[in-house]
Amino acid sequence: MLKSIKESPLYPIANPESIAFFGASNNISAMGTNLLLSLLDLGFEGAVYPIHPKEERVHNLKAYRSVTDLPEVPDVAVLVLPTRIVCRTMDECGRKGIKHAIVVSGGFKEKGGQGIGLEKELIEIAGRYGIRFLGPNCIGVANPYHRLNTTFIPHEGPSGFIGLASQSGSFITQMFNYLAGYGLGFSTAFSVGNEANIDLVECLEYLGACSRTKVIALYIEGINRGREFVKTARSIVPHKPIVALYIGGSEAGKRAGFSHTGAMAGPDQLYDGIFQQSGVIRAQCITELFDFCWGLGSLPEPRGPKVVIQTHSGGPGAAAADSCGRAGLELPALSGETIEKLSPFVPPTGSVNNPVDLTFTKNPLHFFSEIPGILIDEEKADTLLIYMLNAPQVMRRTLTNMGVPEEQVEGQSSKLIASQAKSLSRLFQNRNKPLVGYTFRSLDEPAIRSIMDQGIPVFRGPERAARTIRALVQYDRMRERILAGTGGPG
Amino acid sequence: MLKSIKESPLYPIANPESIAFFGASNNISAMGTNLLLSLLDLGFEGAVYPIHPKEERVHNLKAYRSVTDLPEVPDVAVLVLPTRIVCRTMDECGRKGIKHAIVVSGGFKEKGGQGIGLEKELIEIAGRYGIRFLGPNCIGVANPYHRLNTTFIPHEGPSGFIGLASQSGSFITQMFNYLAGYGLGFSTAFSVGNEANIDLVECLEYLGACSRTKVIALYIEGINRGREFVKTARSIVPHKPIVALYIGGSEAGKRAGFSHTGAMAGPDQLYDGIFQQSGVIRAQCITELFDFCWGLGSLPEPRGPKVVIQTHSGGPGAAAADSCGRAGLELPALSGETIEKLSPFVPPTGSVNNPVDLTFTKNPLHFFSEIPGILIDEEKADTLLIYMLNAPQVMRRTLTNMGVPEEQVEGQSSKLIASQAKSLSRLFQNRNKPLVGYTFRSLDEPAIRSIMDQGIPVFRGPERAARTIRALVQYDRMRERILAGTGGPG
Repeated sequence: MLKSIKESPLYPIANPESIAFFGASNNISAMGTNLLLSLLDLGFEGAVYPIHPKEERVHNLKAYRSVTDLPEVPDVAVLVLPTRIVCRTMDECGRKGIKHAIVVSGGFKEKGGQGIGLEKELIEIAGRYGIRFLGPNCIGVANPYHRLNTTFIPHEGPSGFIGLASQSGSFITQMFNYLAGYGLGFSTAFSVGNEANIDLVECLEYLGACSRTKVIALYIEGINRGREFVKTARSIVPHKPIVALYIGGSEAGKRAGFSHTGAMAGPDQLYDGIFQQSGVIRAQCITELFDFCWGLGSLPEPRGPKVVIQTHSGGPGAAAADSCGRAGLELPALSGETIEKLSPFVPPTGSVNNPVDLTFTKNPLHFFSEIPGILIDEEKADTLLIYMLNAPQVMRRTLTNMGVPEEQVEGQSSKLIASQAKSLSRLFQNRNKPLVGYTFRSLDEPAIRSIMDQGIPVFRGPERAARTIRALVQYDRMRERILAGTGGPG
Repeated sequence: MLKSIKESPLYPIANPESIAFFGASNNISAMGTNLLLSLLDLGFEGAVYPIHPKEERVHNLKAYRSVTDLPEVPDVAVLVLPTRIVCRTMDECGRKGIKHAIVVSGGFKEKGGQGIGLEKELIEIAGRYGIRFLGPNCIGVANPYHRLNTTFIPHEGPSGFIGLASQSGSFITQMFNYLAGYGLGFSTAFSVGNEANIDLVECLEYLGACSRTKVIALYIEGINRGREFVKTARSIVPHKPIVALYIGGSEAGKRAGFSHTGAMAGPDQLYDGIFQQSGVIRAQCITELFDFCWGLGSLPEPRGPKVVIQTHSGGPGAAAADSCGRAGLELPALSGETIEKLSPFVPPTGSVNNPVDLTFTKNPLHFFSEIPGILIDEEKADTLLIYMLNAPQVMRRTLTNMGVPEEQVEGQSSKLIASQAKSLSRLFQNRNKPLVGYTFRSLDEPAIRSIMDQGIPVFRGPERAARTIRALVQYDRMRERILAGTGGPG
C-alpha cells in the first residue's frame, strides 16, 4: 500500500504541470489532434508543448521540432504517433529526462507478430531511462479535477467520486455522457491499454489512495498479476469499495476481449473466485457497474438485507418486492408500533404490509416526510426503498383544481418539488440507513432530478435498485470478512 | 378464438360510444373526479353522462341524478363509488339495460372478510342482467386510438402497438410516460382487477384479435384459468407474440401480489412450464417486458441465434459480445467474402473479427451505410447489432474543424444526423433481418432519437439488446413448435 499518493508513478501522469504532446497537428482528422483538442477543451492549466516536425504552431500553441528543444523537462509525454516511430520517440524523451509517458499508439502486442517485438523494445527503452508509462494501445487519462483529459472525446458532465481503471480505452470516453445523466462523474479514469509498464494493479493502488475517489470501478478483460491484485484489493476494501466488470467469462466475450487488448481471459468461475477473495463486488454488465458505484459511493452501509418498500402504486410495489426477493434481500413484516404510527396516513384502500402501499395520500407531502420518517425508525428496516411516481401532470392538475391561478402553477409546482426533495433528504441526514428510490419516469424530470440532487440515487426499474442494495449488503459482508482476516467466501 | 373482435365483451368496453360515469364530482380530491378528468383530457368523443345525486353539472357536463334518467342506454358504466353502494348501482344499471361495466371500486375479494361476500353478490347481480364487467378493484381501460382513458393519470405519448392486460391497475398508468420515452405506446391496455367477471384470458382473446396490437404484454400475479390461458395463447402465438411478466415467483413477490389483488400465486417453475407450453416469452422484470415488446413489435424475425456486432469502440464491443454470449446467442466469424468487402473501410487499428471494430471511420457516413450494408449481406449473420456512439460534440468539432462556419454547424449536424438515420433504415427495408442498436448515450439525443424514429430499437446497454434478440429467437422457435403441433419445451 502507498504511504502517499505522490509515491505512485501515476501521480505525475494524472496531475501533470506540463505535457509534451506528440502526434497532434493542424490536420483535424488525425487522432492526435483530436486528443489535443479534448485536452484544450477542458481548459488544462499547465504547459502544453506540441512536438511537430514541420508546423510552427499547432492549434494556437507554439510547436517544437524536437523534444530536445523544449524549454523545460515536461512531467509527461503523450505519444499518439504511428507505431514505427514510437520507440525512437520514447528514446528521445528519455534523453530529455522525461520520466513519465502515456503511449496511446497501437500496433504492439495486441496486433501479434512484429508488434510483440516492438512492445518488448519499448519496455526495454523505458527501463533504460527509468520511464514509467501507461499503454501502449490506451486512451490515456481523464482527471477532471485537474482539467486533464487526453482522450478522444471532450469531457462532459461534472467531476465525481468514481475512480476507474479500464482495460478498454474508448470505454472511458463513452462513460462521460452516461455518468453525467445520473449526476455522476469520474474522480480519475485510467485506460491501461496493453499494461506494458504500469498495470491495472498500480491504478488500483493509486485510486485506493486518491481522496476524491469514494468507490473504484474496474473494467477487466484479463488480470495478469493475480496475487498482487488480490493483495492490493484487500488492502483497499476495508476503507473503499471496489466494483469490477469482467468481460471474457463468456466464450464470445473472451474472444472479443482477446482481439481487443491481447489480455488473457480465464474462465468465469476463476474470476468469481478472485473477486470473492479480494472483496471485490462483481457487476454483470456496464449498467450494474455504475449502478453499484452510485449506491456504494453515495449511501451509508445497511446493517443487513432487510428492505422496507414504500409505494403508492400496487404493481410497481409488487414488482419491487419480486426484484428484492430475486436479489436475495428480505422483506420483513412491519412491527406493531410502526403500523400504529402509520395508520393516520394509510387510506382504507392501502396496505401496511411490506410493500407499504399507500394507494394515495391526501397530502402529497406526507409521502416524502411523515411516512418515510416513520419507516426509517422501523427497527427491522435496514434499507428503505421508495417508489417515485411524481407525475408532473398530476401535480399540475391538483394545483389547478385547488384554485392556483394558471400562471402560478409552474412556480408552485417547482416549490413543491424542491420542498419534497429537501424534506426527504433531511430525514436521512445523520441516520445510518440507506434510502434508495426507483421510478419508471425519466430521470430528467425535475421531480426526480431534485431528489437525485440531494444525493439520493433513483434507479429506473426496481430490479436495478434491488441489485444495488444487494451490492451494498455484499460490500459490508466482504469488508467484515477481510477485517476479520479470513479469506473464504462470504 | 374470436371470429371477430366485436364478439368480445371487451369491444364495447374499449370502444364505447357513450359512458355513464359514477363517482365523479366537482370535488377534485375524489378518485372518480380524477378518472373523469383523464377521460376528458384525452378528448373522448362519445357522450359522457356523470351520475351524481346532488350536482347539476360535473366539470361542465350535465349531471344526472340517476342512471334511469339518462336519455339513452350507454354502452358502458364506469363505477368509482364507495364499496357499499356498488351492488345497488350495478342493479340500477342492469334495470336501465346497460350490458357492460368497469368497476374501479375496491373493497371486495382483495380485502377478505365481508368483501368476499360482496363480490359474490356483485357477480350474481351482473349475471341476472347479463352484464359483462371488468374489475372490481381495477383502473379500467386505456385505448388511445379511441381517445379513451378511464385511469387515474392523464395519457401521455403516442398510441402504439403494445396491447396490455394487467393484474395491476396503477401499473398501466405508470407506463404511459415510460413507453413514450421510447417512442412507444399502448394499442389498448386493460386493468383486470379481481377478474370477477371478465378475466385475463378474455383480454388475451381481445388483444389477439385487435389489428392495432402487434405484440401482447401481460403483467401477471396469478393465473386462474390455466387450461384456457394455454389454449388461447397457443391460438394467438402463431400470428402475434406474447410476453409475460410474472410477479409472484419469489416469496416476496408472492406475498406482495397476494395482498394486492388477492390472486393466488404459484411456484416460479410452475409458471415457467405454463409459459413454455403456451409459447409465451417470459420477461424477468418490467424493463424486459417492454424491451421485448419493442423488439418483437418492430423487427422481423431472425432466422437464428447468430449475431454480428458492429462497433467503433472496443470496450462497448467486447461488452456486447459478452452480453450476447451470456444470453445464449452466437457470434459467428465473418466469411472471407465479407472480410474482403469490408477491407477498404477498416483502418489498421480496426478488427474484422466479430465484433467488427472499426475504431474510427474516415467518413462517418460509412458507419451507417456501406459498412452495415456489407454486414447485412453476410450469410452467417441472423441479426446485426450496432453500437451507436454518435457523440454530438465530436460531430460539431469535426464540422467546425472542416471549416463549416459556426452559425451553420448546428444545421449541418442535424442534416448529417437525418441522413445517417435514413441511410441505415433504407438498408434494412425489404431485408428480412433485424437491426438492433445499443448505446450509452441518452435516448433523447437527436442522433439516437432519429434512428429510433426510423423504427430501429436502440437499447441503453448491450445486455438489454442481447436479451431482446434472444426473445426474438425464442419467439420464432416457440411459434414453429406450436405450428408443428408439439407441446414440449423448445
